[in-house]
Amino acid sequence: MNRPSILVMNGPNLSRLGRREPEIYGRTTLGEIEEGLVQAFPEVAFGFFQSEHEGALIDKLFEVEDQGGWSGVVLNAGALTHYSIALRDAIAAVKVPVVEVHLSNVYAREEFRRKSVISEVCAGVIGGFGAESYHLGVRGVLSLPGQ
Amino acid sequence: MNRPSILVMNGPNLSRLGRREPEIYGRTTLGEIEEGLVQAFPEVAFGFFQSEHEGALIDKLFEVEDQGGWSGVVLNAGALTHYSIALRDAIAAVKVPVVEVHLSNVYAREEFRRKSVISEVCAGVIGGFGAESYHLGVRGVLSLPGQ
Amino acid sequence: MNRPSILVMNGPNLSRLGRREPEIYGRTTLGEIEEGLVQAFPEVAFGFFQSEHEGALIDKLFEVEDQGGWSGVVLNAGALTHYSIALRDAIAAVKVPVVEVHLSNVYAREEFRRKSVISEVCAGVIGGFGAESYHLGVRGVLSLPGQ
Amino acid sequence: MNRPSILVMNGPNLSRLGRREPEIYGRTTLGEIEEGLVQAFPEVAFGFFQSEHEGALIDKLFEVEDQGGWSGVVLNAGALTHYSIALRDAIAAVKVPVVEVHLSNVYAREEFRRKSVISEVCAGVIGGFGAESYHLGVRGVLSLPGQ
Amino acid sequence: MNRPSILVMNGPNLSRLGRREPEIYGRTTLGEIEEGLVQAFPEVAFGFFQSEHEGALIDKLFEVEDQGGWSGVVLNAGALTHYSIALRDAIAAVKVPVVEVHLSNVYAREEFRRKSVISEVCAGVIGGFGAESYHLGVRGVLSLPGQ
Amino acid sequence: MNRPSILVMNGPNLSRLGRREPEIYGRTTLGEIEEGLVQAFPEVAFGFFQSEHEGALIDKLFEVEDQGGWSGVVLNAGALTHYSIALRDAIAAVKVPVVEVHLSNVYAREEFRRKSVISEVCAGVIGGFGAESYHLGVRGVLSLPGQ
Amino acid sequence: MNRPSILVMNGPNLSRLGRREPEIYGRTTLGEIEEGLVQAFPEVAFGFFQSEHEGALIDKLFEVEDQGGWSGVVLNAGALTHYSIALRDAIAAVKVPVVEVHLSNVYAREEFRRKSVISEVCAGVIGGFGAESYHLGVRGVLSLPGQ
Amino acid sequence: MNRPSILVMNGPNLSRLGRREPEIYGRTTLGEIEEGLVQAFPEVAFGFFQSEHEGALIDKLFEVEDQGGWSGVVLNAGALTHYSIALRDAIAAVKVPVVEVHLSNVYAREEFRRKSVISEVCAGVIGGFGAESYHLGVRGVLSLPGQ
Amino acid sequence: MNRPSILVMNGPNLSRLGRREPEIYGRTTLGEIEEGLVQAFPEVAFGFFQSEHEGALIDKLFEVEDQGGWSGVVLNAGALTHYSIALRDAIAAVKVPVVEVHLSNVYAREEFRRKSVISEVCAGVIGGFGAESYHLGVRGVLSLPGQ
Amino acid sequence: MNRPSILVMNGPNLSRLGRREPEIYGRTTLGEIEEGLVQAFPEVAFGFFQSEHEGALIDKLFEVEDQGGWSGVVLNAGALTHYSIALRDAIAAVKVPVVEVHLSNVYAREEFRRKSVISEVCAGVIGGFGAESYHLGVRGVLSLPGQ
Amino acid sequence: MNRPSILVMNGPNLSRLGRREPEIYGRTTLGEIEEGLVQAFPEVAFGFFQSEHEGALIDKLFEVEDQGGWSGVVLNAGALTHYSIALRDAIAAVKVPVVEVHLSNVYAREEFRRKSVISEVCAGVIGGFGAESYHLGVRGVLSLPGQ
Amino acid sequence: MNRPSILVMNGPNLSRLGRREPEIYGRTTLGEIEEGLVQAFPEVAFGFFQSEHEGALIDKLFEVEDQGGWSGVVLNAGALTHYSIALRDAIAAVKVPVVEVHLSNVYAREEFRRKSVISEVCAGVIGGFGAESYHLGVRGVLSLPGQ
Repeated sequence: MNRPSILVMNGPNLSRLGRREPEIYGRTTLGEIEEGLVQAFPEVAFGFFQSEHEGALIDKLFEVEDQGGWSGVVLNAGALTHYSIALRDAIAAVKVPVVEVHLSNVYAREEFRRKSVISEVCAGVIGGFGAESYHLGVRGVLSLPGQ
Repeated sequence: MNRPSILVMNGPNLSRLGRREPEIYGRTTLGEIEEGLVQAFPEVAFGFFQSEHEGALIDKLFEVEDQGGWSGVVLNAGALTHYSIALRDAIAAVKVPVVEVHLSNVYAREEFRRKSVISEVCAGVIGGFGAESYHLGVRGVLSLPGQ
Repeated sequence: MNRPSILVMNGPNLSRLGRREPEIYGRTTLGEIEEGLVQAFPEVAFGFFQSEHEGALIDKLFEVEDQGGWSGVVLNAGALTHYSIALRDAIAAVKVPVVEVHLSNVYAREEFRRKSVISEVCAGVIGGFGAESYHLGVRGVLSLPGQ
Repeated sequence: MNRPSILVMNGPNLSRLGRREPEIYGRTTLGEIEEGLVQAFPEVAFGFFQSEHEGALIDKLFEVEDQGGWSGVVLNAGALTHYSIALRDAIAAVKVPVVEVHLSNVYAREEFRRKSVISEVCAGVIGGFGAESYHLGVRGVLSLPGQ
Repeated sequence: MNRPSILVMNGPNLSRLGRREPEIYGRTTLGEIEEGLVQAFPEVAFGFFQSEHEGALIDKLFEVEDQGGWSGVVLNAGALTHYSIALRDAIAAVKVPVVEVHLSNVYAREEFRRKSVISEVCAGVIGGFGAESYHLGVRGVLSLPGQ
Repeated sequence: MNRPSILVMNGPNLSRLGRREPEIYGRTTLGEIEEGLVQAFPEVAFGFFQSEHEGALIDKLFEVEDQGGWSGVVLNAGALTHYSIALRDAIAAVKVPVVEVHLSNVYAREEFRRKSVISEVCAGVIGGFGAESYHLGVRGVLSLPGQ
Repeated sequence: MNRPSILVMNGPNLSRLGRREPEIYGRTTLGEIEEGLVQAFPEVAFGFFQSEHEGALIDKLFEVEDQGGWSGVVLNAGALTHYSIALRDAIAAVKVPVVEVHLSNVYAREEFRRKSVISEVCAGVIGGFGAESYHLGVRGVLSLPGQ
Repeated sequence: MNRPSILVMNGPNLSRLGRREPEIYGRTTLGEIEEGLVQAFPEVAFGFFQSEHEGALIDKLFEVEDQGGWSGVVLNAGALTHYSIALRDAIAAVKVPVVEVHLSNVYAREEFRRKSVISEVCAGVIGGFGAESYHLGVRGVLSLPGQ
Repeated sequence: MNRPSILVMNGPNLSRLGRREPEIYGRTTLGEIEEGLVQAFPEVAFGFFQSEHEGALIDKLFEVEDQGGWSGVVLNAGALTHYSIALRDAIAAVKVPVVEVHLSNVYAREEFRRKSVISEVCAGVIGGFGAESYHLGVRGVLSLPGQ
Repeated sequence: MNRPSILVMNGPNLSRLGRREPEIYGRTTLGEIEEGLVQAFPEVAFGFFQSEHEGALIDKLFEVEDQGGWSGVVLNAGALTHYSIALRDAIAAVKVPVVEVHLSNVYAREEFRRKSVISEVCAGVIGGFGAESYHLGVRGVLSLPGQ
Repeated sequence: MNRPSILVMNGPNLSRLGRREPEIYGRTTLGEIEEGLVQAFPEVAFGFFQSEHEGALIDKLFEVEDQGGWSGVVLNAGALTHYSIALRDAIAAVKVPVVEVHLSNVYAREEFRRKSVISEVCAGVIGGFGAESYHLGVRGVLSLPGQ
Repeated sequence: MNRPSILVMNGPNLSRLGRREPEIYGRTTLGEIEEGLVQAFPEVAFGFFQSEHEGALIDKLFEVEDQGGWSGVVLNAGALTHYSIALRDAIAAVKVPVVEVHLSNVYAREEFRRKSVISEVCAGVIGGFGAESYHLGVRGVLSLPGQ
């Protein structure tokens, strides 16, 4: 059996982690989160991708699908979570499972952040544990049937 | 009189046609649809463009406008149909007529797909006939006054 | 194989076409539209029916169904489009396919005209091309599987 | 100059006036109201029409329009006031002016009666004066420009 | 004391019962339901009426009222249930009690079917038991005070 | 029997009549309307009051009530129509009947003008006849029971 | 074949029947209703349960399911009808069919009583016949397929 | 340092797991889930509690708080998730952290299941992984600061 | 320590108390209520103010603030309760505490009376006890910290 | 004449007073509030009841009603205030008057706390005075007619 | 050419500037703002007006219009911004241009402050710059065509 | 002290200024506006950026932040104003102040243009002055504390 491979994909503004509103998002940078995942899950082959562009995230998702062999995607779509039906349709269009993660508990924040247009097509949802949300997301992917 | 020229423009996820949720969208690929149009309308000079990027679609629309000489655009905006006011404003900003098409009958699907923010500025709307929607869209463009 | 037969059915106020608010609906009368269809599609056997009565439209639809042999119905339900659930249920109750057409782009008009209660049960939807909408509707019927 | 002629048109349930919920609508019958108008306005040639059928009211309105020579219509559309967009479109389609009247003050009743879909296309609106509403409606027609 | 008499009145599309969407409405025809009632309640004098026309249903209701002597009406208003305020006002305008019945459980279906504009003025409501709903409706009428 | 006396009361901005947006409100001034009423109804003793102040209108209404002997009030509350619950409660608090009038057909204008918070407590409502609305309002007061 | 057995289950406040707002709910007590059912249906083995506790109703429903052999449940959930998704899920979780009954016509009462969160998972719905609603509910259970 | 202790608390209907709508909730029973947790996390001292009673869940939460020494609570509140503000306030009232878990992806189900009134006061949210959701929930508790 | 001083301030229409809709507001006049307070609380120095003018109430509130030395305000804002954001901002702008009182239980009346725009900035709210509401309001002011 | 007797009833989470979110609810415990009432009103015979169970509160309310002789109930329903229609119906079902009290000003808090489903059936409402709200509530009960 | 003249008009509560909620509105008084404008724009002839009365603001606006010669009005309508349709209509009724200014960014505050009923008829809108908003407003007036 | 530097950033469709719907947006091109700013503010170092891509605007904003030394950003986000939460979050994520400007008065246009999702995180808002809005925006940036 192959070593599992997981793409960790981050959407708009997550490049600013650690610098952006640290009282909400904490002081850990995205690089540190990615490094933490590599260390915590030595048995997983990780890919990492971040973009402020909705279209680039969709392109990447299709690239992953076309390459084949990926176990799943851990996706923090950032603000696109709340309105990008295009991203939603892309997730629905691919067979690779996508797990939605959030650093903060989006349900405890502004009204418009409580609605996710992508949850409906994700395999599962995890939020509120800070950087640990990504770790739980990876475990979530590994626990999906077929892994 | 010139040979009519029509740009067939497709938005996010339509690159996956034939592979994406075939029970909804059918098994015909976008390439096959485009080929079908070329064969069905030998008298029309076609251009084809697809992108997952909202901005790229707008850029293309402005390019078409600046080139001049195009008879119209047949646009399947995909998921952008439902929220891209930027695309809507771009359609309103150009003089070239745009006909909105959909493969499926969007009004028979999820609630959020029943609202189109671009219909208001399109010359006409056609939906529900599968690949045939594009053929009707081309005819729609050809029937517009001034063609 | 038989010559295709299509019923063109018009709802309330379409009897006034050409005289009613010509700045919205144009100056072509319903009779001229019907004649135009006969000329444009000599291979099709047309039936024509118009009524201001919701019930009469439903009666006609059931008559068509019971006669059998019709290829489809091109329906401009006029204002009933926006609230007649009875007409909607009638369309759902018959096997003959119904294509919804509109002269104007209803999505570019008053808020209450943007909702169609019948779209969900129609085979396809066409709007905004004036009298040409009916021509596209006929082509839409002819393109449906089984024709 | 001609004697003015006014059609007094009543919609569903107004045939029951005097018998239907008299605590709301009073004990005067529709016949008595019509007679009262004839006596109060001897200078006016009246026509009277009542139907429970939306389509019949529209047919009548078009008949009035086609006959020509009518000064205006005093219309109590009954419950159709609240949802018949077909009737609304018919009023908009004719040139003869239509004045909307109500026996009761519809704004002091159930929520769904406070919305009129026809007011927007009527020349004026009168409500709350019982049978007198029709008298004021006739005066309203007579006061319109062009009479 | 007289033999009780009940009018069973059916609205739009119920003429298609047995043929229309049998997975929802079953395979029993309206004629079979009516026959079933006659056999199940030999002590009741039944009248039967069906129409696709809102106005015809109202006309019939007033005829029943004017004839007098009827014990009640069992009404399946079909799609009119959801928007015909005219039918609602007619039920309110008559003294003969009306029991609202539905074949299917309308509350388990589309959102727009969950609202009944006539329930408020009916003596009682029964839904979800298929053809048996009519039987329960007849019993409901028989159980009303004054029978 | 006494000569009837009617207060014609106008709210905010009606002092500008004839100068304010004449395409909507016409070119007749409030003074001309008042004069027109005096001439048209020589049998009525008129009072006139206009103010931009909600409180002053309420004060006046209570003054009228306390004086006694007034037959009724013809009130054009202007923009207060749409939100002044205080004015509404004042109308409900007095016994003198109040008839609501509008120059334009408020139901054919902006959404927020379609709601009147005072209609519910007025004896009747008249709108859309320009200056004639006041004449009909006076007749409406004169027709009320007890005059 | 076995004698049918039906549990008649009542929710909050129905213990007060006969004493609670008798102008709405009548003067018959719950005990009298239960006795009336026993006399009217000697062929049925009845169980009776009432509680003000949402949890106790769910416990009882599961007990009935685990015992097996019950033909169905006639449930008047009282105010829980309008918000207890837990009760709704319990009904969906059991195989024994549940018929929803109401003494009054809930659709003719306050807005918040017109929504039932349990109707969607009940076999049928009956309301408005007072104590007779329970009788019709029992008949409804007996008429369900499989009885 | 002490061995961590976690209470796994389940709300209404979760006692039926494995038997209730297995196409949604799977065939694993609650007992099996609990056993699975004990085996997967030998280092954790577990408590287990399930009830159909909102009040009993709140009582238990306060008992846990008063005992002290618990590391956290993994809570599947079942249907109470969607309306029990009392449970929400109880979670807010205790210092012990609560992690919200769901078997299914509630955001991909009925509209009313997409709103959680308790998320706002929970430390984190996990849904969609079946029985694995509980495992991730336990890990979530263990990852919280202070553990 | 000083004798406490309280301003009792009443908004539009409360000058009519005892005469206005006595079935809702009772037969006690505002003067009698004020006298009752003086007698019931001899230890309090009262000021009284009533106006139909929103602006005058705000002016008074600022006068009270500028004078200093007042213990608090008992305010029945009448209909302004429901829409006067200006009054709300004035209450928020002053340091003197304001207690909102109502004669009737506004939550048991029309929908639009259930919303108070001033409650959010008042120290407390009391309603439903008739004239006694003012007495409780005075006690409420006296119980506030700092008195 | 008898000594007045009042039941002070508290709903979910009020058992935690003094420990729960003291920045909102203060540091006084429920026991201290109850003691304070006994001392402040030596002429009143108090009963006290608190529960996290909706059903237990309803049971208690019926017990009070059946015992008779109670002057009234001072009820802080906690979170049930916002959704328990069952509690609302129980209050409506008993003759003993119920006064609704809140420690905090619920109208100045989260949106969902601004709606009370029980206010409509309570004799009066008091909120925002902390523990003093109970004192005012007791005075409110004592001031009700019939005490 | 004349020296430009600008009226700076302030609505309810702006008289309290500097004392009212300084954390939101700052510590500068209205007098200081006015003085600052005089010094910053020596070439402008300023008028200043402030009132808590909606009617007085409208009176002033009409006075300005009738005097003629004013270049424009800089208006901070305070809380009236959010509901005074009367003020809105007054602005629409005058020819002198009105620029709407706000000290704070109203779009970053309470929901009800995000709606302005006057923006639609103002020449432009400026908010969020504190006292500087008035300076920008004056520049805005000076930049309007016709100055 | 340094010379202030300001980035003027324009979103989708603003590249078409002067050609796009000139009746709304005027005939000045974006290049002319930029040139006008350079001439009007010789003391300011300007940067200019325009893109149809949401992601490119966010990338640019982060570039500005990372370069440091910029005084502020004047942003006309075009249609993204109304839905791009990603852009909103980017503005919130940077320390450089952003002033939102609009050419037209968005509050006087279509309903969907009246909502700005970015206003809440901008330093200030200016709209309605055409090209002058940019000038006022520059002044607004220069007036911010810290410049």
